[in-house]
Amino acid sequence: MVILGIDPGLATLGWGVIEAQPGRQRLIEYGCILTTPNQRFPERLKQIGEEMRALLQRFRPEEIAFEELFFAKNVTTALNVGAARGVSIAACAEYTDQLYEYTPMQVKQAIVGWGGAEKKQIQQMVKMLLHMEEIAKPDDAADAIAIALTHAAAGMARGQFRMK
Amino acid sequence: MVILGIDPGLATLGWGVIEAQPGRQRLIEYGCILTTPNQRFPERLKQIGEEMRALLQRFRPEEIAFEELFFAKNVTTALNVGAARGVSIAACAEYTDQLYEYTPMQVKQAIVGWGGAEKKQIQQMVKMLLHMEEIAKPDDAADAIAIALTHAAAGMARGQFRMK
Repeated sequence: MVILGIDPGLATLGWGVIEAQPGRQRLIEYGCILTTPNQRFPERLKQIGEEMRALLQRFRPEEIAFEELFFAKNVTTALNVGAARGVSIAACAEYTDQLYEYTPMQVKQAIVGWGGAEKKQIQQMVKMLLHMEEIAKPDDAADAIAIALTHAAAGMARGQFRMK
Repeated sequence: MVILGIDPGLATLGWGVIEAQPGRQRLIEYGCILTTPNQRFPERLKQIGEEMRALLQRFRPEEIAFEELFFAKNVTTALNVGAARGVSIAACAEYTDQLYEYTPMQVKQAIVGWGGAEKKQIQQMVKMLLHMEEIAKPDDAADAIAIALTHAAAGMARGQFRMK
């Protein structure tokens, strides 16, 4: 099963695609959708939507896992990050209803086995699990791969992580 | 010039279309995009995107004015409202780059001439300016019409209200 993991953001949206089979996961590809403050806000959102749709057509994921956001520095940041997240969710929802989400703590627990794990430990485990030569860069892409792996690990229990 | 005004929201997104000519504005139509908490979040966002695109094709607005959000009860609300706003902005950005935004205070100032005006006064003025028989319902639709009128009133100065 092809799983797309997404760590949503306005400036950097990380994505990672894995192929998950019972007991074995293979990395297909990862990357980021990048926008800059030089672009107008509507232009940034439009770009995120277009690149998301291109990713979906390219990798044809059967299930998509998002990082669940519940924190932001302030309301203004939340409105902007929420917009980028909304655009990427809407693009995915037009493609499939198999959308799931995991909190950062659930990702830590699934990958390292401990909810208090540090980012570096997650990245090392992701590298090991997928037989990668280097840790994925940037962090947002590494996080996205970790989210896809978390979804694979959820297995039969994944129904409870369906996006509400 | 056909102007589309939008008061974005997740449960209720108000919209109003006016035809603006120098010194004269005519109401074309108004309404709401409604979603419910019974729907999953991705389904709600998808619906907002689809209905927005249908509105754009139906009314072919030359310029689009949004209410600028900068307030929300809390970060969670901001993430959800921001998502709905993001999806509607992205749909508009795929259609045109003529996107503008106005704060509630700018709307009050433009319509009633006083930034501290009450919602009821705005709605009465909108009704009068557009020769409507009744105040537009619900409030979100009335607000959207007021935003479109505010954009019409901005005239040559509207460049400064371009969405950044």
